[in-house]
Amino acid sequence: MLITIYLIAITTEAMSGALAAGRRRMDLFGVALIAFVTALGGGTVRDILLGHFPVSWTQHPEYIYLTVGAGLSTMLFARFIHHLRELFLILDAAGLVAFTLIGCNTALEMGYSQPIVVMAGLITGIFGGVLRDILCGQVPLVLKHELYASVSLLVALLYLALEHYQVPEDITLLAVFSTGLAIRLAAVRWHWTLPVFDYTREHW
Amino acid sequence: MLITIYLIAITTEAMSGALAAGRRRMDLFGVALIAFVTALGGGTVRDILLGHFPVSWTQHPEYIYLTVGAGLSTMLFARFIHHLRELFLILDAAGLVAFTLIGCNTALEMGYSQPIVVMAGLITGIFGGVLRDILCGQVPLVLKHELYASVSLLVALLYLALEHYQVPEDITLLAVFSTGLAIRLAAVRWHWTLPVFDYTREHW
Amino acid sequence: MLITIYLIAITTEAMSGALAAGRRRMDLFGVALIAFVTALGGGTVRDILLGHFPVSWTQHPEYIYLTVGAGLSTMLFARFIHHLRELFLILDAAGLVAFTLIGCNTALEMGYSQPIVVMAGLITGIFGGVLRDILCGQVPLVLKHELYASVSLLVALLYLALEHYQVPEDITLLAVFSTGLAIRLAAVRWHWTLPVFDYTREHW
Repeated sequence: MLITIYLIAITTEAMSGALAAGRRRMDLFGVALIAFVTALGGGTVRDILLGHFPVSWTQHPEYIYLTVGAGLSTMLFARFIHHLRELFLILDAAGLVAFTLIGCNTALEMGYSQPIVVMAGLITGIFGGVLRDILCGQVPLVLKHELYASVSLLVALLYLALEHYQVPEDITLLAVFSTGLAIRLAAVRWHWTLPVFDYTREHW
Repeated sequence: MLITIYLIAITTEAMSGALAAGRRRMDLFGVALIAFVTALGGGTVRDILLGHFPVSWTQHPEYIYLTVGAGLSTMLFARFIHHLRELFLILDAAGLVAFTLIGCNTALEMGYSQPIVVMAGLITGIFGGVLRDILCGQVPLVLKHELYASVSLLVALLYLALEHYQVPEDITLLAVFSTGLAIRLAAVRWHWTLPVFDYTREHW
Repeated sequence: MLITIYLIAITTEAMSGALAAGRRRMDLFGVALIAFVTALGGGTVRDILLGHFPVSWTQHPEYIYLTVGAGLSTMLFARFIHHLRELFLILDAAGLVAFTLIGCNTALEMGYSQPIVVMAGLITGIFGGVLRDILCGQVPLVLKHELYASVSLLVALLYLALEHYQVPEDITLLAVFSTGLAIRLAAVRWHWTLPVFDYTREHW
């Protein structure tokens, strides 16, 4: 089931990347690359930081086709996409949870300590979007906006706790997905934000 | 021969990097670093993604001297460089082909599957320029402009096809370089571009 | 002693990262991430480029707590920090030297050649700041400003020379730190800069 959600997640992320590329008036190639990087960049950064070679997508060329295909299709369907805004928010939130869990698992299997497992989940969850924003020449949204990274962090901590108490796998997944989705969608709905740090001096 | 073209290619890329640094009024050190990154960054990203350690330039310190030297020399000769515009376009196009072939070969030797071989060629071809543009604070040109990345992609596909049919090495090189150069120079000459995706909504 | 200076250094860098995040009005999470990346990003880039796995901070979760903690504390003390400007300049300069030495040592222990050892020192010294600036959406300061990277380069070269002549460890450290600090602080005090390359043509 996690795999199915993962495939939906990378498709959704690829589409969000394609739209970001479209806002910068990129060409076909730019759209394909940004779609690919947004969908698979988080896992790539995680694999490199953990020394997890070969990098996952190099063993799954079908992920390349899927994300590039989703990115390019977005060019055709772009005008209809905003009608599906609610659906995309839900898929994006489910994807964030799935990315986080897969990131945690990769680090767990490699025997990393718990703080690194949490970092691996977080990095997998947010770095696709960070790379997308850097390539699009803007400050990563995740550093400024809404509860997004925090959801990933909470999900990773909850997952580790449930694993620690050996809660059965299905209950863990159910708990983690419902918590993650609920917080993320509530954050979007009621504009929950973290406190902002506003520092205006140019030098210290 | 590929090695000679490679050395010319990294020199050309280093000079293009130095000029980009000059447009941002960087200092001597910035020029040297951007020259180095533009010339060797594509291969570095490829090596890291493929898990190909040690990274190539760490075994060839002479590449560091060559690219840094080319970058710094560019500061002296900058005022004359635009007279050589045609020459540079040709060298840059030949370099793109050489980078692509070397990237493909690295992945082939490591036993990666064909789609990854193509990605490795493409990444080697374009990521030096992507890193240059990110360090210079602008959206990577390759995502917006002309047929550049597409030439690298075509070259990689053609190379794999010719390898598959066991065409002799010299004929393969001749075919790949002439095709790559012809398309790239035609694209510059007649302003061939890919379709652009223009999406104006802020949110989906 | 180098470890103590290193811990002070990553704390200082984390605080500089947090202030940069505050200038971009980032939220709590953004501040924590930028603090972490500024402090530990240079060593991470070095480890990845050298193929030095596991990456250092993954074996020292306490570095994560220290840098994130320092970043978040900065939000509370920000209004007082500019009174300590001189202290921070000294700590930052000492940190630059410590980062450079640690980077050189990592490459030395892995058996890399001398030019790569120097590069490893330089990369450890400056890439935390480079990543901070990229994430904050600006051209890396180190490419434009003052003698900063050059100090790291000089320190690396001096360190290698003293090692080569088998100068005793304490004298080496004393020499390297006093030279590095003196040049860096003099560069800040008298606005020493490298020559700037100013190139205005859009195309070559």
